[in-house]
Amino acid sequence: MVSTAGQVILCRAAVAWEAGKPLVIEEVEVAPPQAMEVRVKILFTSLCHTDLYFWEAKGQNPLFPRIFGHEAGGIVESIGEGVTDLRPGDHVLPVFTGECKECRHCKSEESNMCDLLRINTDRGVMLHDGKSRFSIKGQPIYHFVGTSTFSEFTVLHVGCLAKINPAAPLDKVCLLSCGISTGLGAMLNVAKPKKGSTVAVFGLGAVGLAAAEGARIAGASRIIGVDRSSKRFEEAKKFGLTEFVNSTEHEKPVQEVIAEMTDGGVDCSVDCSGSVDAMISAFECVHDGWGVAVLVGLPSKDDAFKTNPVNFLNEKTLKGTFFGNYKPRSDLPSVVEKYMNKELELEKFITHEVPFAEINKAFEYMLEGDGLRCIIHMDA
Amino acid sequence: MVSTAGQVILCRAAVAWEAGKPLVIEEVEVAPPQAMEVRVKILFTSLCHTDLYFWEAKGQNPLFPRIFGHEAGGIVESIGEGVTDLRPGDHVLPVFTGECKECRHCKSEESNMCDLLRINTDRGVMLHDGKSRFSIKGQPIYHFVGTSTFSEFTVLHVGCLAKINPAAPLDKVCLLSCGISTGLGAMLNVAKPKKGSTVAVFGLGAVGLAAAEGARIAGASRIIGVDRSSKRFEEAKKFGLTEFVNSTEHEKPVQEVIAEMTDGGVDCSVDCSGSVDAMISAFECVHDGWGVAVLVGLPSKDDAFKTNPVNFLNEKTLKGTFFGNYKPRSDLPSVVEKYMNKELELEKFITHEVPFAEINKAFEYMLEGDGLRCIIHMDA
Repeated sequence: MVSTAGQVILCRAAVAWEAGKPLVIEEVEVAPPQAMEVRVKILFTSLCHTDLYFWEAKGQNPLFPRIFGHEAGGIVESIGEGVTDLRPGDHVLPVFTGECKECRHCKSEESNMCDLLRINTDRGVMLHDGKSRFSIKGQPIYHFVGTSTFSEFTVLHVGCLAKINPAAPLDKVCLLSCGISTGLGAMLNVAKPKKGSTVAVFGLGAVGLAAAEGARIAGASRIIGVDRSSKRFEEAKKFGLTEFVNSTEHEKPVQEVIAEMTDGGVDCSVDCSGSVDAMISAFECVHDGWGVAVLVGLPSKDDAFKTNPVNFLNEKTLKGTFFGNYKPRSDLPSVVEKYMNKELELEKFITHEVPFAEINKAFEYMLEGDGLRCIIHMDA
Repeated sequence: MVSTAGQVILCRAAVAWEAGKPLVIEEVEVAPPQAMEVRVKILFTSLCHTDLYFWEAKGQNPLFPRIFGHEAGGIVESIGEGVTDLRPGDHVLPVFTGECKECRHCKSEESNMCDLLRINTDRGVMLHDGKSRFSIKGQPIYHFVGTSTFSEFTVLHVGCLAKINPAAPLDKVCLLSCGISTGLGAMLNVAKPKKGSTVAVFGLGAVGLAAAEGARIAGASRIIGVDRSSKRFEEAKKFGLTEFVNSTEHEKPVQEVIAEMTDGGVDCSVDCSGSVDAMISAFECVHDGWGVAVLVGLPSKDDAFKTNPVNFLNEKTLKGTFFGNYKPRSDLPSVVEKYMNKELELEKFITHEVPFAEINKAFEYMLEGDGLRCIIHMDA
């Protein structure tokens, strides 16, 4: 195979020309990686709500034309100057937030909110030179969260790539590059239920079900799912949920319903819905003395979390997490190993698969609330 | 000495006949301890804001006549049926909340909120038979939080007494039975600053200064005190505070002032003020990624804690604590040892001493905001 290193690559990418309009498969030029950058051949990508949210551009500054996509798996094609951790041929997961390994956050045991490479949804260019690596006949096309995986080739900062076991099937473990790790880590790294615990999960989309999967792995004895839609529950049973509460079917607040079901409250809860009412319920439904609630879902811009401070004085703890507290480069390889040794099941999250040419179908499935994850095959 | 066990004891007690009126030293009858109860000779007691709050009875059901007092040290006079952990002559600290050692909370590593003996400010009688052990010529006088230490003798449930080193001076370690342990434990057991940390303490009364003392013991390098009164700061320096912020002297929110002073926020903060605005500032001033805020001060009844949920998603943690997370019987003896081995200084909290006959002076000092703790000598 002739090396393409150092050359512009012409390939297919799904370009969002304007907010809310179907993506268009275009031929784009992908420039070679600059210092501390890596060019990656994407093999599989999937659609996550964050792509949809910024594609709809209802709540933030629109930045178009843009190449979305951040949940993916690929193989390093070439590396820029100064890159020593990765080589062409390495299997990688791109991550929307990075790990520079130098800043206070990267050096802290607790944080994964890297100062240099923390998610930035407003920036559509590379850090190194403030320019895009994508263009169509000279017109720059913006990047998205430093990943832009809806392209056969993309360029990332080396700090946004996790090197993983090359034996891992990329059409499955690509899911670990965002949503599934977020829910799983929220439960395993932050809520940390003990064996035999009682757990509640609010919002039964892919992230919430990954949190439930985390509770199952941790040995929770009761996993209570809370959602506004009962149809979610059948699917949710596959993820270890033992009980279901439809929050729209009760007159009293759902935190009171759960407290009654559990003799005073659950040991821990995770909110993956992003609804501020669900966040408050998730906090207030944990048991006094030891209960821990973890927020994962993104709220609307002006939402306020509101509770009686006595809930805290009664020794309930409230935390939040970003990407499940995983440090992308340091921790993701071990999450991939959890899949490889069959501790973690990923197949059940995959409800649809489409060829790249039909990527807009993935958007339709998500808009209709149909299924969990749609794997997009870049070679088809 | 003739034993008084099994007999009614006649002794002096300071009785609150009605809300907000000076206490009256009366001769009261103290009945013998019943099953699982202990009668204690109080040698020293001090006044805490909780006594004042319920004596003023502005925000809760008034219950009078009542004997207040809960921060104290004494010696066991006699024990009731079934008491095996204590014997006459043991030195003890009464505690307003108990530890039955049998319930889920007592068996949990995290909680100290005993189901049986958790603080109950509305109950003015003993658990065993729903009656008071105090009377004046047949008229029952109510107990307060199961302790009522403003009496030369008082009766408590055995679960509300910590047996301590008899060599410890009760006129000092009596302070550990409430406020000082609350602040100290909030810092050492809940906020848990690491050596070299930057810490903020909101509200520089005795509890806040005890939290600062905890930060000093933990090796914090910067301890920032926040209060509405600058005169507190001179005194606060003795407790290890390195910087002071008067929250009334800034136009911008105090959390922003602190974030600027500390390159993004403190590692941990503790609110001992009970002001809901201070609680919000205490939470929002911790650093993203790893910051932990701990609420200690009691809010007003209808206060709401309100913040943007993104603060949690940025990995700030909010906790609260009750009695510094100390389990009274299991943990207080070791706090006394911290004083005995000179790790913890108590003398600097004692700003006044009065004989029992002048107990109303202690109320005056507190109402005037004069000093920290007033030790009341029961034998004088």
